[in-house]
Amino acid sequence: MKNAIVLLSGGIDSSTTLYIAKSFGYKCSCLIFDYGQRNKREIVSARKVAKRAGCDFQVLSFKLPWGGSSLLDRNIDIPQHKKPIIKEIPSTYVPARNTIFLSFALSFAEASRAEAIFIGAHTQDYSGYPDCRPVYFKAFKKVADSGTKAGIKGNSIKIFTPLLQKDKTDIIKIGLALKVPYDLTWSCYKGGSRPCGKCDSCLFRINGFKKAGIEDPIIYGKSKNI
Amino acid sequence: MKNAIVLLSGGIDSSTTLYIAKSFGYKCSCLIFDYGQRNKREIVSARKVAKRAGCDFQVLSFKLPWGGSSLLDRNIDIPQHKKPIIKEIPSTYVPARNTIFLSFALSFAEASRAEAIFIGAHTQDYSGYPDCRPVYFKAFKKVADSGTKAGIKGNSIKIFTPLLQKDKTDIIKIGLALKVPYDLTWSCYKGGSRPCGKCDSCLFRINGFKKAGIEDPIIYGKSKNI
Repeated sequence: MKNAIVLLSGGIDSSTTLYIAKSFGYKCSCLIFDYGQRNKREIVSARKVAKRAGCDFQVLSFKLPWGGSSLLDRNIDIPQHKKPIIKEIPSTYVPARNTIFLSFALSFAEASRAEAIFIGAHTQDYSGYPDCRPVYFKAFKKVADSGTKAGIKGNSIKIFTPLLQKDKTDIIKIGLALKVPYDLTWSCYKGGSRPCGKCDSCLFRINGFKKAGIEDPIIYGKSKNI
Repeated sequence: MKNAIVLLSGGIDSSTTLYIAKSFGYKCSCLIFDYGQRNKREIVSARKVAKRAGCDFQVLSFKLPWGGSSLLDRNIDIPQHKKPIIKEIPSTYVPARNTIFLSFALSFAEASRAEAIFIGAHTQDYSGYPDCRPVYFKAFKKVADSGTKAGIKGNSIKIFTPLLQKDKTDIIKIGLALKVPYDLTWSCYKGGSRPCGKCDSCLFRINGFKKAGIEDPIIYGKSKNI
């Protein structure tokens, strides 16, 4: 069986990506990161989704003490818009986060002889995040090919971005067909016991389900510990 | 004053690179990694070198639980050759290590608005390690430019590899001119209280000093706790 490393945050996109990787016939190992994110609650969801999918997973921990993002620094507000359309790079952008995540995935893939990495970046992200754009993934592929033993020995590690050209509604429709357990997922940028329903990430999710004509299986509300 | 992030392992190359960065007029912040390396002793040296250079430093810790290198896995022998010339990729290669290190440096540089990253990779390394070759650094530069807010806003972060075309003897000569405290550095691939004097890394160092006509200021010998 072919092996793949799947970057799993516990949200809609990465959970759907995991189920897509499985549908491609890959035996998946999930990589979950505890990097000091404000929405640490997503790690609980990521673990649950990996378990439900019957996949191995490991949680890698590190700190990014330099901050530089509202996802890391509680002194910076999480953005809330009336419409979840972002033209500027939002404050939730974490400097070089996908490069860090992909570099760990690359290390894991090479050491475990996995032939592919899956990451759930997509169009709505890359309207805002530079490291979610096709040009970025093309550049990272060259790093993977030139900077690993696997790459220079002709065993180039594939990097799949199956959602890159999709929006949240497309993704939810694909995920429902693949039976992704969206009730276990977490999208909210804030921590807390319940998703806020107000941050950009919640709005993207809520609108996605609405446009797909499906009820979002999670309950929004006031958290005690935001 | 211009700011730079310097990747510092505590060996000859990265310590010399730090002093080169300083000589270029940069205020340097050193990034030191505790990644489960067998030669953890190098971290002590890296701290000492950063302090002696009068630079800030931080030690970032993470695990690479998948191993895949004799520097991570004590069940794999550290290579020892009669001559320190490597044609094959040695077992000390750590999958995607420089990509992980550079990605953290990139995050730090962007968050702290540093304009450059310095890394001490060089020719003897890239005879063996794929992620020490010019083609690799060129690829990583494209990742930095396309995958960061700084890069797409026209504040491209420079990546300096000032030793890339140098061998160990050249490096030592440059370092001596810059007063690099080689007595504080650690090159040995093995852990322990004293450098073994037998592994490839020790041999490269010993030969480098010999060819430079300078006495190596460290003492080799048997360690109690290898």
